[in-house]
Amino acid sequence: MREIFNNLKSKSSIVHCITNYVTVNDLANIILSSGASPIMADDKEEVKEIVAIASSLVINIGTLNSRTVDSMILAGKRANELNIPVILDPVGVGASEFRQRTTEKLLEEIKFSVIKGNASEIKFLYNKELSKSGVDASIEDIINHSNIDDYISMGKDISRKYNSIIAITGPIDIITDGSESYIVENGNSYMEKITGAGCMLGGLIGGVVGSNPEMVLESVVLGIIIMGLAGDYAKKYIDDNNLGTSSFRTSLIDNIGLIKYENIEEDGKFEKR
Amino acid sequence: MREIFNNLKSKSSIVHCITNYVTVNDLANIILSSGASPIMADDKEEVKEIVAIASSLVINIGTLNSRTVDSMILAGKRANELNIPVILDPVGVGASEFRQRTTEKLLEEIKFSVIKGNASEIKFLYNKELSKSGVDASIEDIINHSNIDDYISMGKDISRKYNSIIAITGPIDIITDGSESYIVENGNSYMEKITGAGCMLGGLIGGVVGSNPEMVLESVVLGIIIMGLAGDYAKKYIDDNNLGTSSFRTSLIDNIGLIKYENIEEDGKFEKR
Amino acid sequence: MREIFNNLKSKSSIVHCITNYVTVNDLANIILSSGASPIMADDKEEVKEIVAIASSLVINIGTLNSRTVDSMILAGKRANELNIPVILDPVGVGASEFRQRTTEKLLEEIKFSVIKGNASEIKFLYNKELSKSGVDASIEDIINHSNIDDYISMGKDISRKYNSIIAITGPIDIITDGSESYIVENGNSYMEKITGAGCMLGGLIGGVVGSNPEMVLESVVLGIIIMGLAGDYAKKYIDDNNLGTSSFRTSLIDNIGLIKYENIEEDGKFEKR
Repeated sequence: MREIFNNLKSKSSIVHCITNYVTVNDLANIILSSGASPIMADDKEEVKEIVAIASSLVINIGTLNSRTVDSMILAGKRANELNIPVILDPVGVGASEFRQRTTEKLLEEIKFSVIKGNASEIKFLYNKELSKSGVDASIEDIINHSNIDDYISMGKDISRKYNSIIAITGPIDIITDGSESYIVENGNSYMEKITGAGCMLGGLIGGVVGSNPEMVLESVVLGIIIMGLAGDYAKKYIDDNNLGTSSFRTSLIDNIGLIKYENIEEDGKFEKR
Repeated sequence: MREIFNNLKSKSSIVHCITNYVTVNDLANIILSSGASPIMADDKEEVKEIVAIASSLVINIGTLNSRTVDSMILAGKRANELNIPVILDPVGVGASEFRQRTTEKLLEEIKFSVIKGNASEIKFLYNKELSKSGVDASIEDIINHSNIDDYISMGKDISRKYNSIIAITGPIDIITDGSESYIVENGNSYMEKITGAGCMLGGLIGGVVGSNPEMVLESVVLGIIIMGLAGDYAKKYIDDNNLGTSSFRTSLIDNIGLIKYENIEEDGKFEKR
Repeated sequence: MREIFNNLKSKSSIVHCITNYVTVNDLANIILSSGASPIMADDKEEVKEIVAIASSLVINIGTLNSRTVDSMILAGKRANELNIPVILDPVGVGASEFRQRTTEKLLEEIKFSVIKGNASEIKFLYNKELSKSGVDASIEDIINHSNIDDYISMGKDISRKYNSIIAITGPIDIITDGSESYIVENGNSYMEKITGAGCMLGGLIGGVVGSNPEMVLESVVLGIIIMGLAGDYAKKYIDDNNLGTSSFRTSLIDNIGLIKYENIEEDGKFEKR
């Protein structure tokens, strides 16, 4: 993983994000803090050109609208032609028929290198397409040590279906390519008290994968470890100084840039499953 | 008010915001810090579904555009059907004919539980519709102890006209349901040196009202006290540490989450009028 | 320059921004911190009215879309009619044909008081229109002491072509009105590790110029000095406290408001060329 980390820091790879207007500034800042470079552009007049100068494309469906859906398809298809990895963050896919329909369309038209979501989002994709294959669809929406095998199995099924790396986030994170799987246990519940921790992780994964397109599985694992560790260091900072959620957000983004590879070796909690 | 406070902290009520892209991230973060949960969605394809899972709807007309106006109407009407409280923040309603026309349309088509604005905004609504009824329309745009009775009278008129709780913000805040009125005197001028303090208050009110739909008047009062107190604590923090406006914003959002009910008992400055 | 500084602090001039949704909140906050007041509005239904109450207009082409391009033209033309200074920030103009075409259209239809960009952006404008006139178009994209005369010469040519003050930003900043030129050497590389430092500078220039419409050249110089100094003080703060990029952003905006004229006298590094 050291090589992946070093590539992230040295390559300044460009991450093209088509994302929601709620957390777009946080995405840009976390990508910069990590060592990569963001470029945000969502008009169909320019996304094909923009994605062509990028190392990866992140598509996030928060605050979807019909104008940007077209741009997502155009950019995603162009990225596929150019072999640029595409990351999908299906934010709140279960919350509306529009998000569901758009996600289905994106999955039909674009080959995603990575699909990242929380347990509810990934379960929604699974139940929609694959629920006949066995895993209990009523599994609860938070990954814990008693349901983790079900989630890994679900992740593998979705991974094979879409030929994508699947990342399922939560108190325990699961990353799988359909055969090999990793779990990560960094991070904490403070991350749910700020908006955009999930979106930011999507952007960060874009940066790591973009600078390591030949090592996508391990890049996603590393991105998730960095995010969790930054959250753990930020929690300590906040607790030590009696600060609150907005300071947590600031410290989280700070730590994305401050983390050294030695921190990952010392404090990273992950294992191959 | 203790019950209202406890409900805010325990119910994780969902606040659907259709708001401007300038301060949307601050709204999301202040709502999370307060104990509630934000969901931002503004496309007409999905707002009816999104509002149906929410506990309240906040409509903020900053950076209006024709696409989102339709969504506001759709979401507001659906919220009315479902008895979900709707909060209107008519940002800068006097600044353009478009904002004025849109606000009139919103007020015609949607029943608002709460209308919150600064003195200029509320006065604009008043003069447009009700100025024949007596209050001097040339009253200055800042609420102070010499004009407060005029503002309370104006608020009551508007409240009766629209059957809404009216909140008029400023150095002194007024909240009225047309018969009972409260004034709040927390907060300070530092809040004018960051963007979005008003918008954030709208979001926060959405959270308090959403978790207390049977006690709207007192919920608005409590929301305004929490916001003012957080501003006062943030001012102290900034002054003590020689920091500036951006640190003030961070500390304000921090304090929204850090405030305990005891702080309200000790430092809340409000009275029934 | 003291008079310009005092006007910025005392006049609360309104800056109308039509800008991208990535850094719009930072723009609003930096403008407020500086002493001016932002108003963001981008719908063609209202921009002509909004700009009429403003002291300056800032047009920033990041996250362009066809809807906002029309608004930029409408607002810019109206500002010209009213003699309100207009600032252009052609963000990433070389990145797509759409941005290039839009920038050309803006330059055709609107008279800009100030055009501000980094070396790549300004060079792109130059090569597109003026490259036959002599300066080596292969000049590298970062201003340093060996190529500064070429950049000044380029800036003068563009300035005369568009009858605008040209500001070229980088490790050394150049500001010219076609005959007089200034260079500024405050600021540091930390500013590249946050999103929007360039956009924020555009907003800040809007505030200084808006409160000093008769002294545009010196106002741009002062805006660039304030931005650079705030960056230098923020760097010191971050380094002293072992903080990262997000804290740098906070401290940068803080310092925009904390800087006194004495700081400019002591630490401002600028000269007339």
